[in-house]
Amino acid sequence: MSETTTTATTTAEDLRARALKLDATDPLAGRRELFALDDGVYLDGNSLGALPVHVPARVQDVLTRQWGELRIRSWDESGWWTAPERIG
Amino acid sequence: MSETTTTATTTAEDLRARALKLDATDPLAGRRELFALDDGVYLDGNSLGALPVHVPARVQDVLTRQWGELRIRSWDESGWWTAPERIG
Repeated sequence: MSETTTTATTTAEDLRARALKLDATDPLAGRRELFALDDGVYLDGNSLGALPVHVPARVQDVLTRQWGELRIRSWDESGWWTAPERIG
Repeated sequence: MSETTTTATTTAEDLRARALKLDATDPLAGRRELFALDDGVYLDGNSLGALPVHVPARVQDVLTRQWGELRIRSWDESGWWTAPERIG
């Protein structure tokens, strides 16, 4: 039963080294910086995902420029009229 | 027909003076500064009102602090859960 023997001799350091190696080669690792996350371990939020970092500036532009400055011209100039078609 | 006579002798200056006097005593005049408006004459926008100036900062707080930092805690701590009751 070589498998049992292998498991028994695995140390915490081995597991940490293995985890770090997997993290280093994780093709999805860079996705984390796309979201506003602190140092905590973020597991899941079924009712609300983490905030994408680009959202506040995007929403601010919609509010201050598209709504505040262009006003009803945004129906055409900011593409509001066709938004339902783009969003689907 | 004194009314006709009065109308005929009203000058543009008279009208301007009367308008300025009415503006100066308009109890609603201060409401204008609550909205993001340029120097143009804003008549109406049936499909979109002028932007209330307090909105961008309020929305930014909802995005960055309530969503970005508190995340699902905002259901309780930011009053999201009871928002439908407040808004009606």
